[in-house]
Amino acid sequence: MAEKYIVTPWDVSGDVDYKRLMKEFGIKEIDSKLLKRIKKTAGELHPFLKRKIFFVHRDLKWILDEYEKGNKFFLYTGRAPSGHTHLGHLVPWMFTKWLQEKFGVELWFQFPDEEKFLFKDNLTLKDTENYTKENMLDIIALGFDSKKTKFLIDTKNADLMYKEALKVAKKITFSNVKSAFGMTNDVNIGSIFYTAMQAVPAFLPSVLAGKNIPCLIPHAVDQDPHFRLSRDVVGKIGYYKPASIQCRFLPALQGSTGKMSASAQETAIYTIDDEKTVKKKINKYAFSGGRDTVEEHRRLGGRPEIDVAYQWLNFFEYDDKKLKKIYEDYKSGKLLSGELKKVLIEKLNKMLKKHQAAREKAKSKIDKFLIK
Amino acid sequence: MAEKYIVTPWDVSGDVDYKRLMKEFGIKEIDSKLLKRIKKTAGELHPFLKRKIFFVHRDLKWILDEYEKGNKFFLYTGRAPSGHTHLGHLVPWMFTKWLQEKFGVELWFQFPDEEKFLFKDNLTLKDTENYTKENMLDIIALGFDSKKTKFLIDTKNADLMYKEALKVAKKITFSNVKSAFGMTNDVNIGSIFYTAMQAVPAFLPSVLAGKNIPCLIPHAVDQDPHFRLSRDVVGKIGYYKPASIQCRFLPALQGSTGKMSASAQETAIYTIDDEKTVKKKINKYAFSGGRDTVEEHRRLGGRPEIDVAYQWLNFFEYDDKKLKKIYEDYKSGKLLSGELKKVLIEKLNKMLKKHQAAREKAKSKIDKFLIK
Repeated sequence: MAEKYIVTPWDVSGDVDYKRLMKEFGIKEIDSKLLKRIKKTAGELHPFLKRKIFFVHRDLKWILDEYEKGNKFFLYTGRAPSGHTHLGHLVPWMFTKWLQEKFGVELWFQFPDEEKFLFKDNLTLKDTENYTKENMLDIIALGFDSKKTKFLIDTKNADLMYKEALKVAKKITFSNVKSAFGMTNDVNIGSIFYTAMQAVPAFLPSVLAGKNIPCLIPHAVDQDPHFRLSRDVVGKIGYYKPASIQCRFLPALQGSTGKMSASAQETAIYTIDDEKTVKKKINKYAFSGGRDTVEEHRRLGGRPEIDVAYQWLNFFEYDDKKLKKIYEDYKSGKLLSGELKKVLIEKLNKMLKKHQAAREKAKSKIDKFLIK
Repeated sequence: MAEKYIVTPWDVSGDVDYKRLMKEFGIKEIDSKLLKRIKKTAGELHPFLKRKIFFVHRDLKWILDEYEKGNKFFLYTGRAPSGHTHLGHLVPWMFTKWLQEKFGVELWFQFPDEEKFLFKDNLTLKDTENYTKENMLDIIALGFDSKKTKFLIDTKNADLMYKEALKVAKKITFSNVKSAFGMTNDVNIGSIFYTAMQAVPAFLPSVLAGKNIPCLIPHAVDQDPHFRLSRDVVGKIGYYKPASIQCRFLPALQGSTGKMSASAQETAIYTIDDEKTVKKKINKYAFSGGRDTVEEHRRLGGRPEIDVAYQWLNFFEYDDKKLKKIYEDYKSGKLLSGELKKVLIEKLNKMLKKHQAAREKAKSKIDKFLIK
């Protein structure tokens, strides 16, 4: 179980040991007491909370304390555009949408369109600009409230952001980024500076409002090093340290528990994939926890804990009863691997059909989300 | 003569050996042939050229070649606001004004209002914002053509600049800035990134015009490491490498041949100093090349080559005949040190009276120079 894994904002690979990661990063588990509190305040628990997909946090208790005192927080999350949106990207955004709805709060959605340009040799700013537009459609399609959601694009909104990033940058040395991200002297100076830009949305709304507003960042656990580095700095320059609520990665189709990679086409399903592509990818690539023969499967049962189709249903089939039945039937051998895949394919295609229709409508809505 | 000296964009001290600096930096002397060509094209030579105050260059011949072919260059210079303007600052700007007038070209004047904030612990962005406004008045007072001059303020115009800086930053590593500026791992990440922002005005006009325009940067020699680093990069991303024409430093009142320091009040004369202050500072602090007694001075003569009052007249008394007479009278012992100082005091106060009146009028003109 002590396999090698890497989790940095730019590289997630190997069999991620989440328990060890919690210790290394210094992030806390969302325990049953905290879950109860969220349920009380939100009126319900999102399946991602019940299923421990969102499983760790920083200062979430404080965010709820303030909220209950009437001091609302704002949400901050983001997407570094470098390709089309896949299902793994949707996970934190779906959850963010739920938070916005249940708590009635503002969301600042950052598009750091320079990040992947700086970290990937072959990506141009023209590329990231195009993907920014594409990714925006997926975000709008999830149903965020345009009156309460602002898109912050680093290169376009630099007149608001660069000055604030400088305040953060002045308090972070090269030694600091070296130890946080494992950078060497050969990295470019843009990528060294970048973490300061990622810190900005955590306090920019406070700057613009002229008052201190708590910030909650829902994000996948690989982004924690950025905020670990900037939390103290944001505190030092006079704003609340941002709190966070963090999720696991949707497993890649091939079944590592690492993050899906947008660069390896066959490991991910994209929001723009059509029904046939979804069917083909799942049938061909989804790692199966079934047995070698039908006979053996009936006798020994499937292994949902390593079966990607089941893992994905754990993310996307919100109906607890349905999911439980699938688990039991698969575990008992009643449900075959191909049948399980069929359940997933139908679920995803239904979900994507709805998403793609909303995505089409989103094309006329982008303007409402931009900062003028 | 092999005294220790330091010349970096942030620190100039000691007895600068300009010959050695030329070798170290790889910059070329402006020889008599090049001077003749400038005279032919401009119609005259500025005293700063005749007196070798502007004494070195990069690619100036190419700039003149292109100009003669009808391919006009634009000028780029700047001021990192961190205090009030002193006479040493005026030197490259006065020359830039002359270039604009004689060649009829555009000037992009950068106010990198983040630079000194990043490099000086106690300076806030509020401070640099205030000094930006103060410094603008001095620049406008010199008579730049508002129709051909644009002020570029890094934090305010980041929407234009940050994206372009990224293209430069992607091609410069931490190792590169380490060797160019002698940076250590303890410097902040903003100061590491900064050189990319300083490169932007060298090609931004080309970006905005959608065509490649040659760039000539008049600047004091201490800024060369920035452009040495960015020239190749600007070339690599598809624009002309910027050319430069570089000047020596106006000596500090105390007489080192280093740069005047805005932080040591008594070494500099500010554009806002009143007549009495100018008189007091020159009489009290200006290093004298006179002798210990009047009798000795009459017999041995003064030493203009180490006398700061004379050195300053070499910068600010444009009348060659007058200057020659002062030199000879001082050298022969006819003119006493106190008398020489009086000549300088009168010259400067006359110059500053005119400047201060223009500076007052400049207050209503700032808007014309800003980028909308």
